[in-house]
Amino acid sequence: MTIAKTPPTPYYAVIFTSTRTAGDNGYGKMAEAMEKLAADQPGFLGIESARDGLGIMVSYWDSLESIAAWKANARHLVAQQRGRDMWYEEFKVRVCRVERDYDFTRA
Amino acid sequence: MTIAKTPPTPYYAVIFTSTRTAGDNGYGKMAEAMEKLAADQPGFLGIESARDGLGIMVSYWDSLESIAAWKANARHLVAQQRGRDMWYEEFKVRVCRVERDYDFTRA
Repeated sequence: MTIAKTPPTPYYAVIFTSTRTAGDNGYGKMAEAMEKLAADQPGFLGIESARDGLGIMVSYWDSLESIAAWKANARHLVAQQRGRDMWYEEFKVRVCRVERDYDFTRA
Repeated sequence: MTIAKTPPTPYYAVIFTSTRTAGDNGYGKMAEAMEKLAADQPGFLGIESARDGLGIMVSYWDSLESIAAWKANARHLVAQQRGRDMWYEEFKVRVCRVERDYDFTRA
């Protein structure tokens, strides 16, 4: 996992913060499949994720319309329901407009 | 680390994604100090972080003015410089307006 190469601002970010239930219960396989599926959606710009107890996944999109379409994707809806049924103890989703950004790379 | 309890939207998020150089070099102690210092700043709403290779830290604020004041904090400026000198291989900072959010808690 690397830092997402996003275009000039403005663009959009979905911050998904979560804590998991115990055990894998098919989560790892589904998470991998959903990451691949998201990358094929119109308007997808990139994704970043990390977990050490708390999980943070940030996906980047070109518009609110692209985010809404991904949320309504049929296979993604199945995954979302399974997340509520089995995988997540708690989560919060924040839909954001990225106003400005800057970066640093060691010389 | 738990999911931040943020107020109703709109509010602001700073997404700081990074990869580290090898070794601690005082990073852990400074990160802890900066997290405490941030929590004392006007307009601070909460923080979430996770690292497994890639690090993602999201801090939440009430306004762009509060974010600018934190970026200009004298002790924080020292930490930022040390980050560029020693701790980070690469980072990206994204300043965002949180437009809407929703959450789930297991019953």
